[in-house]
Amino acid sequence: METIKIGMVGYKFMGKAHSHAYRDLPLFFPKSIHPEMKVICGRNPEGVAEAAKQCGWKEYTTDWRGLLERDDIDLIDINAPSDVHKEITIAAVQAGKHVFCEKPLALTLKDAREMLEAVEAAGVKHMVGFNYRFAPAVMLAKKLIEEGRLGDIYHFRAWFLQDWLIDPNFPLAWRLQKDIAGSGSHGDLGAHLIDMAHYLIGDITEVIGMSDTFIKERPLPTNMTGLSATVSDNAEKGEVTVDDATLFLARFDNGALGSFEATRFASGHRCTNSFEINGSKGSVIFDFERMNELQVYFTDDRADVQGFRRVLATDPAHAFAEAWWPPGHTIGYEHTFIHEVVELMAAFREDRQPVPNFRDGVKCQEVLEAVDLSIEKRQWIKISDM
Amino acid sequence: METIKIGMVGYKFMGKAHSHAYRDLPLFFPKSIHPEMKVICGRNPEGVAEAAKQCGWKEYTTDWRGLLERDDIDLIDINAPSDVHKEITIAAVQAGKHVFCEKPLALTLKDAREMLEAVEAAGVKHMVGFNYRFAPAVMLAKKLIEEGRLGDIYHFRAWFLQDWLIDPNFPLAWRLQKDIAGSGSHGDLGAHLIDMAHYLIGDITEVIGMSDTFIKERPLPTNMTGLSATVSDNAEKGEVTVDDATLFLARFDNGALGSFEATRFASGHRCTNSFEINGSKGSVIFDFERMNELQVYFTDDRADVQGFRRVLATDPAHAFAEAWWPPGHTIGYEHTFIHEVVELMAAFREDRQPVPNFRDGVKCQEVLEAVDLSIEKRQWIKISDM
Amino acid sequence: METIKIGMVGYKFMGKAHSHAYRDLPLFFPKSIHPEMKVICGRNPEGVAEAAKQCGWKEYTTDWRGLLERDDIDLIDINAPSDVHKEITIAAVQAGKHVFCEKPLALTLKDAREMLEAVEAAGVKHMVGFNYRFAPAVMLAKKLIEEGRLGDIYHFRAWFLQDWLIDPNFPLAWRLQKDIAGSGSHGDLGAHLIDMAHYLIGDITEVIGMSDTFIKERPLPTNMTGLSATVSDNAEKGEVTVDDATLFLARFDNGALGSFEATRFASGHRCTNSFEINGSKGSVIFDFERMNELQVYFTDDRADVQGFRRVLATDPAHAFAEAWWPPGHTIGYEHTFIHEVVELMAAFREDRQPVPNFRDGVKCQEVLEAVDLSIEKRQWIKISDM
Amino acid sequence: METIKIGMVGYKFMGKAHSHAYRDLPLFFPKSIHPEMKVICGRNPEGVAEAAKQCGWKEYTTDWRGLLERDDIDLIDINAPSDVHKEITIAAVQAGKHVFCEKPLALTLKDAREMLEAVEAAGVKHMVGFNYRFAPAVMLAKKLIEEGRLGDIYHFRAWFLQDWLIDPNFPLAWRLQKDIAGSGSHGDLGAHLIDMAHYLIGDITEVIGMSDTFIKERPLPTNMTGLSATVSDNAEKGEVTVDDATLFLARFDNGALGSFEATRFASGHRCTNSFEINGSKGSVIFDFERMNELQVYFTDDRADVQGFRRVLATDPAHAFAEAWWPPGHTIGYEHTFIHEVVELMAAFREDRQPVPNFRDGVKCQEVLEAVDLSIEKRQWIKISDM
Repeated sequence: METIKIGMVGYKFMGKAHSHAYRDLPLFFPKSIHPEMKVICGRNPEGVAEAAKQCGWKEYTTDWRGLLERDDIDLIDINAPSDVHKEITIAAVQAGKHVFCEKPLALTLKDAREMLEAVEAAGVKHMVGFNYRFAPAVMLAKKLIEEGRLGDIYHFRAWFLQDWLIDPNFPLAWRLQKDIAGSGSHGDLGAHLIDMAHYLIGDITEVIGMSDTFIKERPLPTNMTGLSATVSDNAEKGEVTVDDATLFLARFDNGALGSFEATRFASGHRCTNSFEINGSKGSVIFDFERMNELQVYFTDDRADVQGFRRVLATDPAHAFAEAWWPPGHTIGYEHTFIHEVVELMAAFREDRQPVPNFRDGVKCQEVLEAVDLSIEKRQWIKISDM
Repeated sequence: METIKIGMVGYKFMGKAHSHAYRDLPLFFPKSIHPEMKVICGRNPEGVAEAAKQCGWKEYTTDWRGLLERDDIDLIDINAPSDVHKEITIAAVQAGKHVFCEKPLALTLKDAREMLEAVEAAGVKHMVGFNYRFAPAVMLAKKLIEEGRLGDIYHFRAWFLQDWLIDPNFPLAWRLQKDIAGSGSHGDLGAHLIDMAHYLIGDITEVIGMSDTFIKERPLPTNMTGLSATVSDNAEKGEVTVDDATLFLARFDNGALGSFEATRFASGHRCTNSFEINGSKGSVIFDFERMNELQVYFTDDRADVQGFRRVLATDPAHAFAEAWWPPGHTIGYEHTFIHEVVELMAAFREDRQPVPNFRDGVKCQEVLEAVDLSIEKRQWIKISDM
Repeated sequence: METIKIGMVGYKFMGKAHSHAYRDLPLFFPKSIHPEMKVICGRNPEGVAEAAKQCGWKEYTTDWRGLLERDDIDLIDINAPSDVHKEITIAAVQAGKHVFCEKPLALTLKDAREMLEAVEAAGVKHMVGFNYRFAPAVMLAKKLIEEGRLGDIYHFRAWFLQDWLIDPNFPLAWRLQKDIAGSGSHGDLGAHLIDMAHYLIGDITEVIGMSDTFIKERPLPTNMTGLSATVSDNAEKGEVTVDDATLFLARFDNGALGSFEATRFASGHRCTNSFEINGSKGSVIFDFERMNELQVYFTDDRADVQGFRRVLATDPAHAFAEAWWPPGHTIGYEHTFIHEVVELMAAFREDRQPVPNFRDGVKCQEVLEAVDLSIEKRQWIKISDM
Repeated sequence: METIKIGMVGYKFMGKAHSHAYRDLPLFFPKSIHPEMKVICGRNPEGVAEAAKQCGWKEYTTDWRGLLERDDIDLIDINAPSDVHKEITIAAVQAGKHVFCEKPLALTLKDAREMLEAVEAAGVKHMVGFNYRFAPAVMLAKKLIEEGRLGDIYHFRAWFLQDWLIDPNFPLAWRLQKDIAGSGSHGDLGAHLIDMAHYLIGDITEVIGMSDTFIKERPLPTNMTGLSATVSDNAEKGEVTVDDATLFLARFDNGALGSFEATRFASGHRCTNSFEINGSKGSVIFDFERMNELQVYFTDDRADVQGFRRVLATDPAHAFAEAWWPPGHTIGYEHTFIHEVVELMAAFREDRQPVPNFRDGVKCQEVLEAVDLSIEKRQWIKISDM
């Protein structure tokens, strides 16, 4: 197999990120199997036509079901809004296609589980888009933990802070409507934190959360694309039906204590996707706004020179770094997607499931819903009861 | 009244910090009422004699009850171990003395409330030693909030991270024994966070917590002073009866969401006593390891130059700063105690209660016990039910 | 004119960076004139063939003179080693081609001036590759200065610190040989600082420098690509003929004082390309290792909240940022080249010279040689005497 | 000898800092010889009387010559303005007193050398007040260098940035008048950098400098104390006769390259007294605004975790730290003076010269004047020619 032929459904923010990843992969990872950008699919004919041209897709269509019938498509990349993930996924795998689906897998745990069953029944490859795992600095944290260099893990704390909703006149975008988005900060940002926890620490056993919607009503938008939207004067208002912020405490299977916070109301934070891990032999701190860096501390450093090291994960010793530029020459957000696709392609070459896959997507959804339930019931919820 | 005559009970870590504060105050705050260092009291005659000489107390004694009978003592400073705070306080105020008591006020909320009743019945002045309020950078945060420059407060998160217990062979010091210390990280470190929350944000309405003791048994110490202790090879082990780490979520009366974490197992953190506050108009971040700095963000800064400002709170515009050195010349931990005593002396001059006082001590204890109860019952606890 | 057809000479480190820029431009700047990747040229047939395939060039050749004769090439991109820049440039412009040449323009000021004369005589467009100008955070600094928000400029200090030569067994690569590289840290790293100074502050009037080669001899390499090379045991040694570090002081035409340092011996610094500017109304600090950030200070901030702001130049208010991802999603090294090419394409659309162009290249060379002369003569050298 | 009896001449900024050091020393360093605060001396009777009371001196006088005749004075502490250092010093040592003189020793190198001759002829102990050496983080840098942990030193760069003159209406204070202050930023701030270089790296062999006075005239002050002064509207103006900023390059005896900058026009910097050292095995970075921290880098750290460590020099492994508070509890500016006096007292106990002493003061003055000469002559000046 020389290339993997891609059909992609969705062409907005994530569609652009994925397109770019497919496009850049051969330049920086020439030994990888190459993705072939065959068809892009979207509901709006003009929009998808323009996206096809801009991003370099050979064809475009508005008929995703038609796409599934084509023999010259190996994998369906699904980054359309979350409420259609399930339908497209199940149809795709029943048509024998491999799938690469953006997070969150689905609006509910039940749906996510059905999707997992479907992909496993179909025996295809499946990946879920938790792209932050693929920052080299995060992969360094993973490596240090796996090698035991942090010792026993006592604490995992993670916070994803944004501030794009701080203006009460920001309109009621689709991300603020539960029926389309499924969830607010919890599902959008918290999901990334939960996946990071699973990746780095392991299973969560129980949770208890707290949530709020600070601005209950917002003006209805007149126009909207991606994260931006416009609003007219004297616009009518509608109800915000998702959470502005969700926090929760968690206990891990290995005994570590976890603390999680996702909010869109942390003024000054554009995209502070951070975690800190404290173990018996060391600690690490990550902040996505400085995504090339990992702060690393070891308890066995000489007594007079103990301190957090600012490691720039751009050296040959770091994951993916040699594919890029000399040490100290940093990479950005979009590179996480390129690395993600490297993993996807490697799974084909090695004939294994890519990681993270739908199992990880379901696990994430279990915790998301357990937190929601704990908020509703005002008590601790065991993940095993979900 | 020209001076306040002090009798101090306790002479270890806090005793030294308080002594130094009394000693330095006249040099830097010459217009303040001066404290007069009359008598220091402790159980060990050699120890207290040496402390008296070293710190500059005129007399020493091992008889704290005798101290209360003297006419030439105005105020009793209590920084002996927490388990004797109540007895000494109540006897002191019944003898007509003012009291300045280290935190925590007592081992239990019940005791703390009795102490508050006693000081109020006696009509004396009472102060509690939440010294971190007196860092100029913290006082700047308070000022910004009071002036409305942060707008409505959405988030308060606070974490007090230390790592002095990370070595499993660190001995079973008194701070690890519940009957003497009352609590572990929660009462020792978390208490400071709770007081900071009360000071900066206001009342907490409900809480839910999580706690753990990571190292259940430790070697019994052979010798011990302050935070250090020695342990022999093959020492017997005893049970650790306090928490190594306690986390909790909280809801404030003004609608803000709170997140708290206190731990002695965060390797790499010697004394990270931090908070972050996010409001509709701005945010602030404080870290005691860089105690002269406050990170400040305003949403109404020009769109192209928005960002957290690193404010060094050493300018004439900052609290207490003019008493010290020129801008940029930083102060340290011990200065928080000097400022605390400036407030105590000002309360005498202005004939009012100092702040923080026993009311603040009781409020802190309410939250501490509510968290403990929430851990025991595995559910949210309302502070009004305590 | 719909596209600009590119013929590129050189295919190593810079060749890859340029190729990627051409390749990504249409995706993120669809309204720009598009570059068309026609022909890539290099000396090694296998190497250039592979590069063509990997980078997406339609054709490849080993005959750069042949390239100049083709009608279907508009612009020659020259990123071959510095010692051939002059010959190729002059031939290219005489053949009527536009040129985009990597820095440094040439090995000597005399050559650089001949090149400038040639391009001006030919009436073609010419650009020089000072890519660091195109970091959005740097462009924010430029904007603040131009708007007068920093006031009168008193100080410019710049330092480019790397550490890849710290190992004395690192081999004698071509960058350490004066006849090929022209210069060491001074021409490689210092050139970027000088251009930054010209861009942000203006003309330099006089300089005095100091230089050293710390490791005089190094093992001869057996194999070498880009910045890496291998060396055998007991390899013979050869003389290092370029500077390991060069520092100089400068005076600017506007009265500002300048300080410059370029070194490859600053252990711990992979690519610290930094500057700080102090003016009567404010200051800015930039560090390429955190290239998305600019530290900004204003003297007219309120007295209690003055401090350096950490501005993340990823907001819509910042140059190029809207072409990329939402605020807080950072970009990397390679994006500076994409922005550079956006400027190059804009110059075609607007029929003007791109900036920076060969005039900037010559000005940079004037200062580089003035510094060399000041080191040789041990005295201040006026730029107007060069 | 149980105590050293001090007579101090001068009672303003430095007088307060020294008084505090004498006062606090017994509390934190009880095993040290104690200084005895006998007599404080100043020109203004009311001023010195108040200072005596405030700082805790037993007596005061306006007659410094009378002070020298007293048998009950062991050491004269001279922190009066620089223009009287010489006269007092020489008289004091001729009267058999030990001397502790603030920096700069004198207004000229000639005077400084006469002072050194005088103290050596008298056979007394002599110390000079380069207090920044005594920050524990600086002492850690010294220790790492001495132990060879940084290897061969290639670079020393130091910058002392302040901004208190940025306002052109700041009045013509005495520090801006050459006849009283001797020098501007160079002698005031640069002197500290030069001493730091001598302490950490060793002898400087040659220098070349550049200097400027940005604001040539300033309003004459009506009232002035310490660093503050008031100015009336329509005040007459006088000429600023000292430098606002001085930069210089230097070569060290051990081959290292040096870069120095002192300025009072770096807006945003209150007291950025910083240095960075790069060696073959590691690097360190210090900034006085975060004086408890040293950034430390080692080239032999494992390849995947190399990075600057933020070491908080408050652990038992750090100089002086055990005398203070538990790890993570920081100290401030004034503590450098306490440590300085600890060294002074230790010199008495061990019957040796304290360090830094007048030899260090003269060496500093040599470099200061060599830089001045290099500016005047516009050429490199060898220190051995001074």
